[in-house]
Amino acid sequence: MTITITAFERSPDGGQGLARDTRVRWALEEVGQPYEVRLVSFRAMKEPAHLALHPFGQIPTYEEGDLALFETGAIVFHIAERYAGLLPKDANARARAITWIFAALNTVEPPILELSTARILESDKPWTKERLPLVEDRVRNRLHQLSDRLGDADWLDGGFSAGDLIMVSVLLRLRSSGILNEFPNLSDYVARGEARPAYKRAFAAQAAINKPPAG
Amino acid sequence: MTITITAFERSPDGGQGLARDTRVRWALEEVGQPYEVRLVSFRAMKEPAHLALHPFGQIPTYEEGDLALFETGAIVFHIAERYAGLLPKDANARARAITWIFAALNTVEPPILELSTARILESDKPWTKERLPLVEDRVRNRLHQLSDRLGDADWLDGGFSAGDLIMVSVLLRLRSSGILNEFPNLSDYVARGEARPAYKRAFAAQAAINKPPAG
Repeated sequence: MTITITAFERSPDGGQGLARDTRVRWALEEVGQPYEVRLVSFRAMKEPAHLALHPFGQIPTYEEGDLALFETGAIVFHIAERYAGLLPKDANARARAITWIFAALNTVEPPILELSTARILESDKPWTKERLPLVEDRVRNRLHQLSDRLGDADWLDGGFSAGDLIMVSVLLRLRSSGILNEFPNLSDYVARGEARPAYKRAFAAQAAINKPPAG
Repeated sequence: MTITITAFERSPDGGQGLARDTRVRWALEEVGQPYEVRLVSFRAMKEPAHLALHPFGQIPTYEEGDLALFETGAIVFHIAERYAGLLPKDANARARAITWIFAALNTVEPPILELSTARILESDKPWTKERLPLVEDRVRNRLHQLSDRLGDADWLDGGFSAGDLIMVSVLLRLRSSGILNEFPNLSDYVARGEARPAYKRAFAAQAAINKPPAG
């Protein structure tokens, strides 16, 4: 059955790979599954046809036969559960890898989302200059803890897993802030993720859609 | 094998059931599994013994034989996967229920966490009065979409699932803000969750720990 995902017709990041379809593309590349992409405009994302697929009007979505899913974490987990390559076979190791998916999305990403909100949605507010350092410190607090746990390991728990795929993707959102560079082992961890051939293919595929028109 | 979870020695909410151990207790009650609780103080949560179990120094954790997990979403998913009662048997319905776990934690909860941060951690800041309505509107935006999807159904996708357990738990954090009452179908949805015998047992168990000393 054909797998079809959705992605931005034009990504707000201009093809830096930060839109969430990159996470799903990466997972599909890791497990070697081909996929098709349907591009949606910002306007179409808020219309009934897309809302039927994604109640929060976002991308990506995932369709395969009569299965339709939304929410990046759920899609990546579904791919990891269905195809070999992103979760260990041992039951306990598998449960721990899944733990890192949730930790990335529910413990590490929320302060990073808050930082994005402060820097983008609230950039014109009078309080933002004074408030940003507080928000950045909440991000740093999480990164300190994550850095301590990772230590000098390559990945969070044994071999590369879906947990690392999501964690690296979450940390990539921090690069432009400079905060990631304060934690050399996390910066190296992210670089290891980006060096994977599957990541490179996923990145290239989304970049190709977002390249500026020729001429 | 005995299941042992951790909880606050004294919950910051004074026993309103908003600490995340309630979510895990609720899941264990739904599937009928007994469990033991080890209480940890705020100081102990930041010490090496607890950090070995939970790298972000939080509760709850989950121990069962040689398996140790952290992160509420992962623990609830593990319970749902291991014991019957929280996930449908049909593969597609199961994937959709898991989608709601992720949607609750990564799409609905982040703006609610941001609201808590604004109201608690930044309550003394000069910008908070002017900024709060913006944060509340970001919460409302998500609730509108969730309310539209739920419609007049009892649960998010067919029967009660782990997705509803987490979504109800996330929405409960909003009650004190009054925002939940602006969405009657969501308010009823949360009430249906609270009316479940398993929720009531979970709530009572955490409240018993946090009751004020007699006298």
